[in-house]
Amino acid sequence: MKELNYLIVGLGLIGGSIAKGLTKTNHNVYAIDINKESINYAKDEKIILNTNESNEELIKNADIIILCLYPSMVFNWVNENKHLFKESVLLSDVTGVKKEIVTKIQNVLEKGEFLAMHPMAGREVSGVQYANENIFLGANLIIVPTEKNTSSSIEKIKYIGEILSFKNIEILSIDEHDKMISYLSQLPHAIAVALMCDRNNDHLIRYTGDSFRDLTRIAKINASLWSELFIANKEHLVLDIDSFIATLSKLKNNIDEENVEALKEMFSISKERRTNFDK
Amino acid sequence: MKELNYLIVGLGLIGGSIAKGLTKTNHNVYAIDINKESINYAKDEKIILNTNESNEELIKNADIIILCLYPSMVFNWVNENKHLFKESVLLSDVTGVKKEIVTKIQNVLEKGEFLAMHPMAGREVSGVQYANENIFLGANLIIVPTEKNTSSSIEKIKYIGEILSFKNIEILSIDEHDKMISYLSQLPHAIAVALMCDRNNDHLIRYTGDSFRDLTRIAKINASLWSELFIANKEHLVLDIDSFIATLSKLKNNIDEENVEALKEMFSISKERRTNFDK
Repeated sequence: MKELNYLIVGLGLIGGSIAKGLTKTNHNVYAIDINKESINYAKDEKIILNTNESNEELIKNADIIILCLYPSMVFNWVNENKHLFKESVLLSDVTGVKKEIVTKIQNVLEKGEFLAMHPMAGREVSGVQYANENIFLGANLIIVPTEKNTSSSIEKIKYIGEILSFKNIEILSIDEHDKMISYLSQLPHAIAVALMCDRNNDHLIRYTGDSFRDLTRIAKINASLWSELFIANKEHLVLDIDSFIATLSKLKNNIDEENVEALKEMFSISKERRTNFDK
Repeated sequence: MKELNYLIVGLGLIGGSIAKGLTKTNHNVYAIDINKESINYAKDEKIILNTNESNEELIKNADIIILCLYPSMVFNWVNENKHLFKESVLLSDVTGVKKEIVTKIQNVLEKGEFLAMHPMAGREVSGVQYANENIFLGANLIIVPTEKNTSSSIEKIKYIGEILSFKNIEILSIDEHDKMISYLSQLPHAIAVALMCDRNNDHLIRYTGDSFRDLTRIAKINASLWSELFIANKEHLVLDIDSFIATLSKLKNNIDEENVEALKEMFSISKERRTNFDK
């Protein structure tokens, strides 16, 4: 698939990192971004091909388009540009919540195919200047097909995942994906944010050990992106937060009642389950 | 202070690591443990000095005794052995919660002085075979004096902290220490445990990214030790869990009500505060 034209729409941290990985393996990579500086930077750094073609021409010539936009912009971009797409175009995205986007896009698409994916990778920074194809090393790529997708498109996305050196490439339904993301990614982010917002803690910095730092690393959150992601997945996330609060309250009651046996039981479950998660 | 006799009581991970650090810097280190195998291992590995003296003799000859026992055992050990102490002995401990232990011990002590310390370091393993003096590198040592302590004892404990390569050596009151530990260490551990106990999550292992792993690393908890620590500090910890739950509930309500501005405000506070914690 080296002869195909790849178009990255939205050249931030993830878009830039995908572009870098594809370019390094000799694929033809183009990009569109509302920020001209990001495009110029990427051309200068040879992250994307240097061309003077207009955005319209880039879209018309693209075989594979990867949408690396904020969740709220993905649908609109497709809807506004769909008349330009090649008949055979394959579109994909990197959005962290799939429910609304996937069905909506598949319903308006007249040409080509939209197959969602979610590269489970990121950093606490944003912008193409931080792009680094190594962020995918050892990470998971989730492909989220519906009944409208073809197996040949799934193979194409798998191929991209392999080029980018993802450790696991998995297939999940929209609901399975959004549920999994709520518990494994969004709930931890909500917890980290709540822990930092809980009190002014500047005076505690010099006493902080690794556990507090590990637990709150992800609290350095991109406010615009994550407010969109949390709200887009609120159906699962609100229930998960409630469930977590109930479990933490149970732990608290065991402490308050000095119920040593019940505490030890929770610690044993915790230790056993967490040991299974070791790489 | 190289001519002094150091006695480690309780040769587990922390006791063993302190012993190793002191021995490597040519101090005279002895140890007592109910587990004869731990003592033999430490003698074979030259972590402590090889001697045939009885425990009674070791206690009688000790200039500095460091209690590395479970919290519930510290007071009883001192009370049962205090008649053997040298007139000039300095006792210290490594217990994670100070309120009950410190005052109680200082009140029964007839000879010598008890000055509490808390090396804020650990691993998710226990036993002298995991002892490693490097666990203190970059960590905090909190010294917790009361009005009964002398400045010369504080200097002796600081000296030990320096030998063991702690990054910071800080002085806190009992209440300041226990409050700080509740928020910075115990609350994160309670959160990690609750997150793992929340549901059976074995089937999610292959989708897990770094954020979930980082947040739950400390969930591999020593059940006996931490149930003692949580209960010993319940006065602070129960309030801290309540406060955290209130903040997380506020975050949840903002998600549920799709209050983007309020969410962004929390994320901004979170990001700003967490950035201050970067080393």
